[in-house]
Amino acid sequence: MPRKCQNEDSILRKIADNARSWRGRAGQSVTLGIGDDAALFRPKPGHETILTCDWFLEGTHFLREKHPPDAVGWKCLARAVSDVAAMGGTPRCFLLSMALPESHTGQWLDLFLCGLGRASRKFRCVLAGGDTTRRNEIFINVTVVGEVRAGSAVLRSGARPGDILYVSGRLGEAELGLRLLKLHREMAASENPAVRKHLYPEPRLAMGQWLVKNRLASAMMDLSDGLSSDLPRLCAASRVGALVEKAKIPQLQITNVAFKHLRDASQLALHGGDDYELLFAVPPREVRRLPKTFKGVRLTAIGKITLGRELLVLIESGDTMQLVPRGWDPFRKKL
Amino acid sequence: MPRKCQNEDSILRKIADNARSWRGRAGQSVTLGIGDDAALFRPKPGHETILTCDWFLEGTHFLREKHPPDAVGWKCLARAVSDVAAMGGTPRCFLLSMALPESHTGQWLDLFLCGLGRASRKFRCVLAGGDTTRRNEIFINVTVVGEVRAGSAVLRSGARPGDILYVSGRLGEAELGLRLLKLHREMAASENPAVRKHLYPEPRLAMGQWLVKNRLASAMMDLSDGLSSDLPRLCAASRVGALVEKAKIPQLQITNVAFKHLRDASQLALHGGDDYELLFAVPPREVRRLPKTFKGVRLTAIGKITLGRELLVLIESGDTMQLVPRGWDPFRKKL
Repeated sequence: MPRKCQNEDSILRKIADNARSWRGRAGQSVTLGIGDDAALFRPKPGHETILTCDWFLEGTHFLREKHPPDAVGWKCLARAVSDVAAMGGTPRCFLLSMALPESHTGQWLDLFLCGLGRASRKFRCVLAGGDTTRRNEIFINVTVVGEVRAGSAVLRSGARPGDILYVSGRLGEAELGLRLLKLHREMAASENPAVRKHLYPEPRLAMGQWLVKNRLASAMMDLSDGLSSDLPRLCAASRVGALVEKAKIPQLQITNVAFKHLRDASQLALHGGDDYELLFAVPPREVRRLPKTFKGVRLTAIGKITLGRELLVLIESGDTMQLVPRGWDPFRKKL
Repeated sequence: MPRKCQNEDSILRKIADNARSWRGRAGQSVTLGIGDDAALFRPKPGHETILTCDWFLEGTHFLREKHPPDAVGWKCLARAVSDVAAMGGTPRCFLLSMALPESHTGQWLDLFLCGLGRASRKFRCVLAGGDTTRRNEIFINVTVVGEVRAGSAVLRSGARPGDILYVSGRLGEAELGLRLLKLHREMAASENPAVRKHLYPEPRLAMGQWLVKNRLASAMMDLSDGLSSDLPRLCAASRVGALVEKAKIPQLQITNVAFKHLRDASQLALHGGDDYELLFAVPPREVRRLPKTFKGVRLTAIGKITLGRELLVLIESGDTMQLVPRGWDPFRKKL
């Protein structure tokens, strides 16, 4: 990890000291961690390595004044781990690249590491290395390394016409959480489930692994940008279309008076991002093997894969409309 | 790769289209590249995976107005590949995270990809995935994945008292190159060797692999921040000290009149960064097996590893002085 001044060495030491307590048995695959030119990872025989990286930038992906540091720590890892879940894999280790202002190397960093450490232990994904530097804004980049039995990863490209489209959980909840957080900063400390889902998303690791083990899904991805942005990506990779029934998309009951103008929660469910639920296709013959819930999380059929390349939504009137991506990026317009 | 709008999808397409032509046979270990939730890498049996990541940030690591875009592309990969060289490994693939201003998605990005592609082919390190986003400044983070036969990587921690310290090439050259570039922007297009070394560093991959194969080095690292910053890291990892003979450090002949005030090029050699040469320790019994040059690059003994934890420099008068790290970061004070 080159180019570090004394201060950057000290940030690195703080991170490394914290990370030692996160390892447990999960760290056995990392044979050399922080402190050398690079980390060494011992791959499991017969497995492929999953590689994914994600930006988590102040002003683009989180707001310094709104997002608690421990949520920044949790979420920067959870988002990247969700990509491993989406292939049915098991996370093993991660690299953390951080640029931080001097003012954030004390308490902010401690709290950040607290959230990151909880995520690291929860996902059994150990810190193997990284790079730190000084900067006026907070930039984070996380690379997660995972594993999956060779040849068994579920890709975006395997959906076939006639497959049934499923989503896990409820959609739009994380976006509602963000809207609440923007209105009331103190919501960050609340137990409001939508705010918690926005701040501390839970990648569907066990579900993804179970789907792979039981060979139930023909294609899969995680919903990070919202159904209307992500479904077209799955369909493009599989060279198919889809017909989604709007009424079937699992959505919220909006009770908060501040959002009574959101007459139709289906807009949140169609376009809201950051849910990190799984979107997957199941061949019709396998549908009977799929339970209604997996470990308490609902699995809902929302439509099907079609031969034509069109992406359609069946609305209440019985008409169909084009699904128009309204890729959810809450910060793009505001900042 | 979550959170991308249409425009970001189009940057990604441009990168992916370019990357297809970089693959060659080197890409065989990447079984799934850009376009899914994550990449899949098939590890070679009996090998460990090397993982390293590096920031390359505008204003910290390069200057938009001084550094040609193709050099930014080459160097962001070369720096991270150098960490793989420092362990004696072979690079296999990389992940590219980029944040770019709208204004830089045209010609700048084309030239950047041209330099990155040359590096990718040269180092046989294929693009496997990444993440892109829009931002006012240019931020790059590169994760390189490499391989080395299990148990044979050369770490920083293996140096023993009595081992002889070696460096490859000449030190301080890249810093001189940067100083020239700062004075004269047009130097970027010149054939000046110091400027070329700053802009297009060559990680010592073959040398690192050869040292591992012949079991010659007890400890090794790459010189990215300068000898006075990096040697203490190797010594700390090995729990040893070192005595360096200043007169033996391979350095430049400074002929450029603009730098006649640099009476002593040894300051550049001690503290200059970005050389990406190898620093390694060789047990005395192995020294006779080490050639004077490797593929035209000099290997120079500059001192030895000592039992005490002190870091000393033997100067011309015969006195010794403490080696004081003057970690070279050319931008820290300027920007």
